[in-house]
Amino acid sequence: MTEIGIGILGGGYMGKAHSVAMASVGAVFNTALRPRLEMICASSQESAERYRAAYGFARATDDWRVLVADPKVQAIVIATPQSTHREIVEAAFAAGKPVLCEKPMGADLADAEAMVAAAETTGTANMVAYNYIRTPASQYARRLISDGIIGDVTAFRGEHTEDFMADPKAPATWRTTGMANGTMGDLAPHMINAALALVGPIESLIAEVETVHKDRPGGIVTNDDHAQIMCRFANGVMGQMFFSRIATGRKMGYAYEITGTKGAIKFDQEDQNAIWLYKMSDAEAERGFRKILTGPAHPDYEPFCQGPGHGTGYQDQIIIEARDFLHAIHSGDPVWPTFRDGLEVARIVHTALASAETRSWHSLSKG
Amino acid sequence: MTEIGIGILGGGYMGKAHSVAMASVGAVFNTALRPRLEMICASSQESAERYRAAYGFARATDDWRVLVADPKVQAIVIATPQSTHREIVEAAFAAGKPVLCEKPMGADLADAEAMVAAAETTGTANMVAYNYIRTPASQYARRLISDGIIGDVTAFRGEHTEDFMADPKAPATWRTTGMANGTMGDLAPHMINAALALVGPIESLIAEVETVHKDRPGGIVTNDDHAQIMCRFANGVMGQMFFSRIATGRKMGYAYEITGTKGAIKFDQEDQNAIWLYKMSDAEAERGFRKILTGPAHPDYEPFCQGPGHGTGYQDQIIIEARDFLHAIHSGDPVWPTFRDGLEVARIVHTALASAETRSWHSLSKG
Amino acid sequence: MTEIGIGILGGGYMGKAHSVAMASVGAVFNTALRPRLEMICASSQESAERYRAAYGFARATDDWRVLVADPKVQAIVIATPQSTHREIVEAAFAAGKPVLCEKPMGADLADAEAMVAAAETTGTANMVAYNYIRTPASQYARRLISDGIIGDVTAFRGEHTEDFMADPKAPATWRTTGMANGTMGDLAPHMINAALALVGPIESLIAEVETVHKDRPGGIVTNDDHAQIMCRFANGVMGQMFFSRIATGRKMGYAYEITGTKGAIKFDQEDQNAIWLYKMSDAEAERGFRKILTGPAHPDYEPFCQGPGHGTGYQDQIIIEARDFLHAIHSGDPVWPTFRDGLEVARIVHTALASAETRSWHSLSKG
Amino acid sequence: MTEIGIGILGGGYMGKAHSVAMASVGAVFNTALRPRLEMICASSQESAERYRAAYGFARATDDWRVLVADPKVQAIVIATPQSTHREIVEAAFAAGKPVLCEKPMGADLADAEAMVAAAETTGTANMVAYNYIRTPASQYARRLISDGIIGDVTAFRGEHTEDFMADPKAPATWRTTGMANGTMGDLAPHMINAALALVGPIESLIAEVETVHKDRPGGIVTNDDHAQIMCRFANGVMGQMFFSRIATGRKMGYAYEITGTKGAIKFDQEDQNAIWLYKMSDAEAERGFRKILTGPAHPDYEPFCQGPGHGTGYQDQIIIEARDFLHAIHSGDPVWPTFRDGLEVARIVHTALASAETRSWHSLSKG
Repeated sequence: MTEIGIGILGGGYMGKAHSVAMASVGAVFNTALRPRLEMICASSQESAERYRAAYGFARATDDWRVLVADPKVQAIVIATPQSTHREIVEAAFAAGKPVLCEKPMGADLADAEAMVAAAETTGTANMVAYNYIRTPASQYARRLISDGIIGDVTAFRGEHTEDFMADPKAPATWRTTGMANGTMGDLAPHMINAALALVGPIESLIAEVETVHKDRPGGIVTNDDHAQIMCRFANGVMGQMFFSRIATGRKMGYAYEITGTKGAIKFDQEDQNAIWLYKMSDAEAERGFRKILTGPAHPDYEPFCQGPGHGTGYQDQIIIEARDFLHAIHSGDPVWPTFRDGLEVARIVHTALASAETRSWHSLSKG
Repeated sequence: MTEIGIGILGGGYMGKAHSVAMASVGAVFNTALRPRLEMICASSQESAERYRAAYGFARATDDWRVLVADPKVQAIVIATPQSTHREIVEAAFAAGKPVLCEKPMGADLADAEAMVAAAETTGTANMVAYNYIRTPASQYARRLISDGIIGDVTAFRGEHTEDFMADPKAPATWRTTGMANGTMGDLAPHMINAALALVGPIESLIAEVETVHKDRPGGIVTNDDHAQIMCRFANGVMGQMFFSRIATGRKMGYAYEITGTKGAIKFDQEDQNAIWLYKMSDAEAERGFRKILTGPAHPDYEPFCQGPGHGTGYQDQIIIEARDFLHAIHSGDPVWPTFRDGLEVARIVHTALASAETRSWHSLSKG
Repeated sequence: MTEIGIGILGGGYMGKAHSVAMASVGAVFNTALRPRLEMICASSQESAERYRAAYGFARATDDWRVLVADPKVQAIVIATPQSTHREIVEAAFAAGKPVLCEKPMGADLADAEAMVAAAETTGTANMVAYNYIRTPASQYARRLISDGIIGDVTAFRGEHTEDFMADPKAPATWRTTGMANGTMGDLAPHMINAALALVGPIESLIAEVETVHKDRPGGIVTNDDHAQIMCRFANGVMGQMFFSRIATGRKMGYAYEITGTKGAIKFDQEDQNAIWLYKMSDAEAERGFRKILTGPAHPDYEPFCQGPGHGTGYQDQIIIEARDFLHAIHSGDPVWPTFRDGLEVARIVHTALASAETRSWHSLSKG
Repeated sequence: MTEIGIGILGGGYMGKAHSVAMASVGAVFNTALRPRLEMICASSQESAERYRAAYGFARATDDWRVLVADPKVQAIVIATPQSTHREIVEAAFAAGKPVLCEKPMGADLADAEAMVAAAETTGTANMVAYNYIRTPASQYARRLISDGIIGDVTAFRGEHTEDFMADPKAPATWRTTGMANGTMGDLAPHMINAALALVGPIESLIAEVETVHKDRPGGIVTNDDHAQIMCRFANGVMGQMFFSRIATGRKMGYAYEITGTKGAIKFDQEDQNAIWLYKMSDAEAERGFRKILTGPAHPDYEPFCQGPGHGTGYQDQIIIEARDFLHAIHSGDPVWPTFRDGLEVARIVHTALASAETRSWHSLSKG
């Protein structure tokens, strides 16, 4: 057991989640590396100090460069706005420090490419924080497919839908300007990442975006509320995706349905402890989607609880992610999704936005 | 109470459903016109006689012209293969007889246009048999939208998915040749009709089709297993639809989700006696999709049963349809969907297939 | 194919359901005996005539003796209040006519015993109308158990819950006086009948009843709103049942859960086209309750529709029941549940009410 | 912020859960007292050392007296077998240390009474670890009832069902001997505690227990697999409960349905992030059970995540529990359920087992 000093940039929503994860991951997974909450950085000294005290860090700063340079900070988690990612990442890798970076990787494709270049030049551990695909259920979905339980996949439908902006009177904020903060830029990446993990590379796509509420209190909205994609995967699978931040009634609509030649899978993050499996090999009268409750028979469940059906939650995904990041550091092996994997998501978002402008199919193939 | 002699063409799946509906619609709805099962027509005299005896018709024939011409046959229901619809319809209208025609209207757009011309020249009652939209739940969905309960619709997702061809070893049949019998031609019309009823006219679309199992025992497959559409409605709503006959695990996946500015609706025909409604006007802590069980408070339910939640089924939709057809005849008023309404669906299917070939957005606007 | 003249007593809720069933059963099931709607009886000549016209009967009467005696009435369906059942049944059997009698059999145990005696003396077809157990799903549940798919049953939980009296301001009516019309007397028999069919004879029980709303507009309530039973079946299975007419939110809460040594079954009539099956023989990670949609692979489904998941409804149960009654008449074989089977339900209700008074376990064994 | 040294007895299933909770509760809830994992005790020095290293404690011991006496251990969590609770608790209170004790309190009623006496003599913080009632959903259920949202409660049904012993070949262990380890002794307390919290005191009950699998590999089973209760609450509410460790297919079947005069609530721990609410005040056509996903609008959710529907899990309940225990220590105020509250559960279990022997109703009223 070796201690490792953790520095976290950003103390809000995700900064807290990562802080809690680092505080508990050792006890949950009995990790070889044991996080020590060394330093937290926030936009002002006052807020940084408040986060430090709340989450239990040793020190606080309002200067990310201080955190990155600090010798007791041995690994870095980035939970700041995406426009800041690139600069921090480049400095961190220059300092030889491993980085777990929140999604999406940067403000645009150029950022993502630069971040991959920085990561691969340095060769230190690098990972993008796509947490939802790490639930026991979604990990199990990946296994079901790779084990051939549902045969060859023939169709994929995915969505990431929430309704936090459904109220037309919700005010304009940083979220409502800049394509990186819109639905395609900010929500879609989670499900695109899932699609890649579950089905494989996407070969071509056509997309649309729509700003339903163009005028909000406090300003004009310049990015998209709804977004949709039709696509083809490299293996010929037909795909359909929908994303929205105004999907009234949906709170965590990270959901997919995967049709195979021998079976099918359905999943909805709003009931994250269940996954539905249909098998054509069942006797005809007994065929039906099985509502499987996750348990010790499924990936990464048992460390949280020995009882099936007892359930894991949002925070537990971040703990699994922390375990994977620590493992990447300790083992020296890349852990999916690396920055290069994250770049693929960024390329797809970039292409989807381009497609929405030209209203035509675009290829993802690399020249 | 006046008797009306019914002639039904086709005695298989749908022919039986219409026969049972005509036998019971009077007792269920206390209709002004009372059907008398006068004559049934099938492809051979032997099968026609078998259907006659089974369903309780007075007479049987293997010649559709005999049925159409018979003076005691006062209204006609067409449940034969769609390539035969046009010829029969033209003869029926020429004889001045009302027609309820199974969907889709004909083998192609030209058929549908000719059928509308025939119907409108004659002016007798004409209706296309889109049964699923007639459930109490889907009628109620239409009412919720027109009453503004969910505000302005902003997004629509629909599917019509079944798995009757999911087994790659299911043999090639008439269903596996001809685009009219493929997924876009045969299954999609139900959901396209629903989309039009729920959201309004479609302005433009882009589509794709895919034959997953190209080689089946007994022959080569020449039409589509999967089909998908992205579209825009005339009111600007973003739409997405998926259709499949190989959607493993789906049996009657006629399902839609409608997002509005004040609420949302979800429906799945596999649980046809429930409709889910979300209202933003509920107190925040009490907001959730309500699983509403249909009952006497919903359209066309009470004639089947006074108890809510007791449920209607597939056959009951056909009975509602029969009631509507009888009403159209008796009142002289057109009843939705008329042949002209059905033509709009045919135009969309036609355009979708064209779009799938050019891989580009197509407009539905009439030149 | 032979015609049979049907006389129905009662034209309200259940009288209509039986009328519609008799109008359509021939076409649905291609029955050997074909019902002819001969005569309907109601409490006044005016209402009888109205029902006659609405449902399509040949003749109407307000005198049940006229109907029973009419030579063209060859089979009788009783859908009048339960206090009238015995007298009618005795006359019908005396006239040698087969009887389908609505549940519960009579006003009390003595009635039920007399009715069985009359039936067995005459030897004509006799059947009690427990419709809910006749859905494809519940018939399939019976088959799953008898085929040993869930092993030995070890526990049973059932309920029949509705909320038609949940509003304290719902007025006092005939339903609110007389134990035969209370929850244990009127609603419980459906689920008790199901318990007997699914698990077998009940050996002992203890029960409770409760009148929650004792004072309603228009009068004092003298029977029970809630009722509950703990029981032991003859095979040692532990049982628990709950019944209510004020179960707020429940519309057709005819539901059961059956635990076996190798699996389990769950069913809820509010989603009557699905039955849930769990099998311990599935691989551990793949174990879950399967939501099986009924279809042609399940009992009595295909005559209604060839497509699985398309669904049957309340009225279809009554049609299945009519088919069974016609079969009993035609074949001369008793069809479950006969009057004797119905008597067993009456004994259990009688014993439960006695147990509720003494607040002690009662045995059902026959002296 | 003040550190508090935590000593945990037992390192298995629950010992780990409490260790993780103490490691993360500070960061999640920004607690005034900050736990320091001071010492863990297990049955051997070797296992204690293993737990220490895994969970991150400073020290390990195999002697509970050492832990209780250690001056740096300022608060104690007991997660050892229930037969050991009393002795440890008495020593801890004698040393003036606050105790969070796993349920059930002791091996029998006498133990529970002695533990209450010890707690109340000392006056230090004392709490029983009923975690399931602490989910945001169940806390919200309590609030809905106390706020009168569903009116007066009229019926309660609860269950705690799992299937960890459903396989007849699962071997005999300590769990299969001693009534304290059977279903009524070990599983029922969770749901009995919930019933008391949701509905209020129980006045009388009748119970049954059953050992279905009496002979397991390795020994004879001397306690119950299934158990059931019918009861009356002091407010007249009719209650029904079922408990099982062989409820095939059920993994965490902690579920309840609460009927009120104005609405109803349904909850099932297997979908712990949803609670179902029905309100009679909704317009009739819009009435249905709302599936409410927990979120920041519900108790104790937001500290885990700002997004509704993102979900909490099993471990999060233990963290809430830890927060409550720390609050009890810090504030000096009793936090429900105290040892005295836990004693009431023990009295009910004791009475239920007595009732099962006499097969008669027993009163819970205190002489």
